[in-house]
Amino acid sequence: MQAIVKMAAGVVVLSAVAVLARQGIGKAQDAAPQQSQQPAFTQDGKLIRPTGYEEWVMVGASTGLSYVQSRTPPVAGAAPGMFHNVYLQPWAYRYAMDHRALPENAMFVLTFYEASRKSNPARAGFYEGDRMSGFEVHLKRKGVDSTGWGFYGFGSDTTASAAKLPGSAPCYACHKTEAAFDNAFAQFYPALRARLLQKPDSELRSAP
Amino acid sequence: MQAIVKMAAGVVVLSAVAVLARQGIGKAQDAAPQQSQQPAFTQDGKLIRPTGYEEWVMVGASTGLSYVQSRTPPVAGAAPGMFHNVYLQPWAYRYAMDHRALPENAMFVLTFYEASRKSNPARAGFYEGDRMSGFEVHLKRKGVDSTGWGFYGFGSDTTASAAKLPGSAPCYACHKTEAAFDNAFAQFYPALRARLLQKPDSELRSAP
Repeated sequence: MQAIVKMAAGVVVLSAVAVLARQGIGKAQDAAPQQSQQPAFTQDGKLIRPTGYEEWVMVGASTGLSYVQSRTPPVAGAAPGMFHNVYLQPWAYRYAMDHRALPENAMFVLTFYEASRKSNPARAGFYEGDRMSGFEVHLKRKGVDSTGWGFYGFGSDTTASAAKLPGSAPCYACHKTEAAFDNAFAQFYPALRARLLQKPDSELRSAP
Repeated sequence: MQAIVKMAAGVVVLSAVAVLARQGIGKAQDAAPQQSQQPAFTQDGKLIRPTGYEEWVMVGASTGLSYVQSRTPPVAGAAPGMFHNVYLQPWAYRYAMDHRALPENAMFVLTFYEASRKSNPARAGFYEGDRMSGFEVHLKRKGVDSTGWGFYGFGSDTTASAAKLPGSAPCYACHKTEAAFDNAFAQFYPALRARLLQKPDSELRSAP
């Protein structure tokens, strides 16, 4: 009887150990990194400013990328327009690689930098100069819009929360029509392009 | 006496629980993500090709960045030269943010992409097209070179390991003289620049 009690106690102890160990792992792998990588909302439905995105997966950079033709001809040697970086949560990136799909609550964060050649020893080309305050978010979430995605503009780095841009904003229609994969411009993001579109850039449809 | 034994047993159990929980956390936070983010070497001292760096912290992108003046004048509207992305291990990035220093075994990985405007709806500017095979590594490690850093060139994505470039390679002298922080071109990397140099790009010394 004593042996049974001891064994029972042992099982309880081992279960407790297993549960706690699992919680420990869970905390580090799932909750800790991911809670700050999930969209959060105010009571009235505004998106709370995401933080730490500069450590997310940078899926693609661009310079002066625009979807409308410039009205002024380019000047030789001129700066190429602003740098844009696009970040995606690491867990969403891994999901995309594993499942060839973008998961619910995926957020693309778009940041902006001056194109600079100011500092030594740069003699040609451009690097990312000072970051502009503010950024934009593209969030995949059922029900926010008929496209299943919402756009949010954070006018400055201190903007605490942002309301969803209305569905009449041109970004919705443009992304729906022109984005190569599920409203996301995967055609501009090297690693996502390779996995989601399964085509190299050289085989993508040409701009007219 | 029975109560003391019970209490003692309780302490042992709690300690075991604490140790296991800690190991669980340790495994997830330190070993699992970091082992693949540490430099590893062949028996004859070559650096084994790092993997997964596209998920590391992208510290700075650039286009056509060069440390020598071009001999041919720039052509209006021409592609701005290749995109370069520079990645740093997440743990090394966090160390840099916390300690204002670059840790031993930090690795910068430099990747290359065509500048493209091929795909719709791009009408101006450039995005990162196909990635060139191969990349370069700049590793901080005592003893590899008098500067405390080694350069390694992986000629293609399938190059299994790379010998350290000899100390006579021009990159060593250039980085030693021109890099703004500990042989690293922190002046070109927005977040590292802000933390390590504590200056915005606009206050950096101008190129002549």
